[in-house]
Amino acid sequence: MKIALCQIDTTVGDFAGNVAKVVAFAARARSLGAELAVFPELAVCGYPPEDLLTSRAFLAAHDHALQELGAAVPADLPVLVGCVERNPSAAQGGGRPLHNAVALLHGGEVRIVARKSLLPTYDVFDESRYFEPWQRPQENVVAIAGTRVGVVVCEDGWNDERFFGERHYALDPVERVVAAGAQLVVNLSASPWSLGKETLRQRMVEAAAARHGVPMIYVNLVGGDVELQFDGGSLAVKATGVACQPVLFAEALQIVDTDAPWNEVPPTCAAPPMHHAAIVQGIRAYAEKFGFPRALIGLSGGIDSALTAALAVDALGAANVAGIAMPSAHSSGHSVADALQLADNLGIVCHQLPIEPLRVAFEQALAPVFAGTEPGLAEENLQARIRGTLLMAYANKHGHLLLTTGNKSESAVGYCTLYGDTNGALAPIADLWKTEVWALSRWLNRDGERIPWNSIEKPPSAELRPDQLDTDSLPPYPELDPVLRLLVEEQVPVAEIALRTGMAREVVAELQRKVQASEFKRYQYPPTLRVSERCWSGRRMPVSHRFRER
Amino acid sequence: MKIALCQIDTTVGDFAGNVAKVVAFAARARSLGAELAVFPELAVCGYPPEDLLTSRAFLAAHDHALQELGAAVPADLPVLVGCVERNPSAAQGGGRPLHNAVALLHGGEVRIVARKSLLPTYDVFDESRYFEPWQRPQENVVAIAGTRVGVVVCEDGWNDERFFGERHYALDPVERVVAAGAQLVVNLSASPWSLGKETLRQRMVEAAAARHGVPMIYVNLVGGDVELQFDGGSLAVKATGVACQPVLFAEALQIVDTDAPWNEVPPTCAAPPMHHAAIVQGIRAYAEKFGFPRALIGLSGGIDSALTAALAVDALGAANVAGIAMPSAHSSGHSVADALQLADNLGIVCHQLPIEPLRVAFEQALAPVFAGTEPGLAEENLQARIRGTLLMAYANKHGHLLLTTGNKSESAVGYCTLYGDTNGALAPIADLWKTEVWALSRWLNRDGERIPWNSIEKPPSAELRPDQLDTDSLPPYPELDPVLRLLVEEQVPVAEIALRTGMAREVVAELQRKVQASEFKRYQYPPTLRVSERCWSGRRMPVSHRFRER
Repeated sequence: MKIALCQIDTTVGDFAGNVAKVVAFAARARSLGAELAVFPELAVCGYPPEDLLTSRAFLAAHDHALQELGAAVPADLPVLVGCVERNPSAAQGGGRPLHNAVALLHGGEVRIVARKSLLPTYDVFDESRYFEPWQRPQENVVAIAGTRVGVVVCEDGWNDERFFGERHYALDPVERVVAAGAQLVVNLSASPWSLGKETLRQRMVEAAAARHGVPMIYVNLVGGDVELQFDGGSLAVKATGVACQPVLFAEALQIVDTDAPWNEVPPTCAAPPMHHAAIVQGIRAYAEKFGFPRALIGLSGGIDSALTAALAVDALGAANVAGIAMPSAHSSGHSVADALQLADNLGIVCHQLPIEPLRVAFEQALAPVFAGTEPGLAEENLQARIRGTLLMAYANKHGHLLLTTGNKSESAVGYCTLYGDTNGALAPIADLWKTEVWALSRWLNRDGERIPWNSIEKPPSAELRPDQLDTDSLPPYPELDPVLRLLVEEQVPVAEIALRTGMAREVVAELQRKVQASEFKRYQYPPTLRVSERCWSGRRMPVSHRFRER
Repeated sequence: MKIALCQIDTTVGDFAGNVAKVVAFAARARSLGAELAVFPELAVCGYPPEDLLTSRAFLAAHDHALQELGAAVPADLPVLVGCVERNPSAAQGGGRPLHNAVALLHGGEVRIVARKSLLPTYDVFDESRYFEPWQRPQENVVAIAGTRVGVVVCEDGWNDERFFGERHYALDPVERVVAAGAQLVVNLSASPWSLGKETLRQRMVEAAAARHGVPMIYVNLVGGDVELQFDGGSLAVKATGVACQPVLFAEALQIVDTDAPWNEVPPTCAAPPMHHAAIVQGIRAYAEKFGFPRALIGLSGGIDSALTAALAVDALGAANVAGIAMPSAHSSGHSVADALQLADNLGIVCHQLPIEPLRVAFEQALAPVFAGTEPGLAEENLQARIRGTLLMAYANKHGHLLLTTGNKSESAVGYCTLYGDTNGALAPIADLWKTEVWALSRWLNRDGERIPWNSIEKPPSAELRPDQLDTDSLPPYPELDPVLRLLVEEQVPVAEIALRTGMAREVVAELQRKVQASEFKRYQYPPTLRVSERCWSGRRMPVSHRFRER
């Protein structure tokens, strides 16, 4: 059987666009001799639709689009596409009103042939909010061109206890469809990328093919939602090999023949760093979705803003990226020089707007209420807020997308000023630890300096008071980041972190206190491009609580 | 049987504090002759714990606290308390790792006697993220002092299809425990207040008592989390009447005797406006939890900031509230006068910091990049951001909690400046429509002017350009608010809203477009005190999507 893996980029709510794209891919699949075309999860409405799923108008538009799609794809090509189904027993029997489902489009007909059983509720996912889990995955088997095809949806493929060493859910839908006679398993996914996910996913699909002895066809969404980045990486795997090289971070139509031998393609994924591809896709997708062709970055001369600017250039082109350097009296001599060197390296414009006159103006304006006080945090934050206000003024005036330059280390401990340097529509590197910021910057310089080496090598400083260094109040980042990662991403107990890393227990506890005390800042932080398994929006922590580990 | 309804205010993660409070209430219940004391849902750890439930240290501290509690309460008084239980079958059988459970503390022993079956996943709730739903609620029956007590947890009581006219879940745990022989049903809740919730809850409990013919004891949490406000309102209801007057927005220990006749207490709740009590509790709780005794409000002379200031005074006292008036060249003559009149009425300090010199300083600073452009949105936003920066400078310097003064109407359509007037740690009235702002303000003036009548009666204006009025670009609020409510809170289709309200369909569609286009502002909006059934944090809408209704 010749199967088309249709790895497409859908847009949430763009029914006309999504339908047109599915139709175009299906037509091309047909012309390439495919006997079945497979599209991603919820391709009709786009993923993740979130609370649009509780809008009656949205559901009506979805149903209309699905019917339209059924009539528009080639009648002689069976097409499997992810869609929403109303749960008929919701009102009488109880349960959520929808199923996350798969439609078979064939001969002008639309038929639901599978429903999702395993609904993720961890990390950024909350599918139980909308969907009723399907209890009979063994019924997700449909005959297509004489082959019994088992159909599962994304998370349904992620509960192989032999692979993971434990069960996450009671059912294993893949096991069920194979037991029910599936000769082939198709997985329609919207599986967002995080570091290492593409490798884990491929190993998992290979393990399933080996265990069940049937081909596994895995079709994933590609493209950027606001925070989530879908990498595609669609796969066709048999116990004896793979049928095609996964394509990452790009749309693709690949034809595989389940009757041909599969062993000639190396089962490797694209070269690192995947970070770069994901973040570049994320900036570009955000700019397109919001209709902002241009990005703006405040350039401090430091590494974070330099990396953000380089990534913006890679996403949008140098002509569409502007920088503003805003030196203060506390800025070191090299700050502006490094910013200008960066702009020169990248070929972007860099304006200079000194903030000292504004600082003085605020000092005068605040004199009636600041009289008799010592300069401190208020004055430090003021500088950051003057800069944030200048950046927003420029962005509003010239139609730019302001990018926040914060990294994950500083947003973890709250070393940032709300309404100041956190300002921005999107935070491209706020899910990269500082040590990852350095590594990615060095990689960007692999063929010559793009990010000034001085920005990479100088000691990090917020430059909000004279001679300030991050290490004045924090351990050096190579020691800090592994500890923060354990605290934030894995929620390992403080005592255990101290044992595992060798950092003094009271220092770890103090870092946890900082993480907790800055929860309110992250509540108002811009959308962050997800890189790790646990980005800020995948963490749902009370803004206020009193739990203290010692 | 004499039962103590222990309506307490817990704090998330404050195990020592929560344990001490339960012990104190249990001791008092014992001294009052109670034979059973009932506490709210998850009282041991506080509600909502969110991702603290995925921290091993937090769970270990919980388990320790529960054991400690079991040893500390009077040994001869059975106590039912909400707690977390590890799901023993999670690893092998699949499923979430925890149960939302109830422990019976008696004779120094701790025994889990009930688990929650119905886990809310709508609105602000995401309990499926942590808990496995309990499939055998009929086992939630325990003999206490010779009475078979059915024990359910919060949402378990909210699936009576005879009352609601439809089922929300497959099971009805109340029906199950009664069928299993319960002579009395106890519901341990953490049910947050929203407008009308206290009445609905009472009617529902009364319906259950009438239907099942057994007494219903309903014990609810009270107090403020950050956004959620718990009103308490604990109830004891038999088919023949109620045993005590619900106490709202305050801790309470009430003893009811199930063997006595219950009909002497009027089944009414506290007088409106409940908004006021909820918001005042919310401001006070936030200030206490974050350790900020004082609040700061930017006073424009308008109704929103005036109401926010009055509510802050009611929460924290006039001595702990400060205002700053920040007139611009566009401010009307009455702006400062109205602000000063408000301050005088409330007895709060009001500073004046004119922004014109700062506006000029920014104009000069931005001249290199603004040259040749016409004044517009950038200049309007700049004024709001200068004010936001002054307010944060004062708040940082003097240790105040800045309160955001935006209402729900303006945050719905995006008539606010991010990093400007949206600045703040808490938004007390951002879940009140403008028409509710007026109504509550008039109520606050019932015994004499607190909010200047001029602020209530003058036409609303942002005063960011000369002679600007909200009605320049929006319908009058009495027409606007019902439409926004249908769009935002009920997600009714545009065409249907036009039919129901008489507003032109294209005007409704344009309002929906504004709501959608300002989703990115609400992403960075401060925590909002919840008043409606659908506050901003209970709405999970994509920041970007392309669905358009016409």
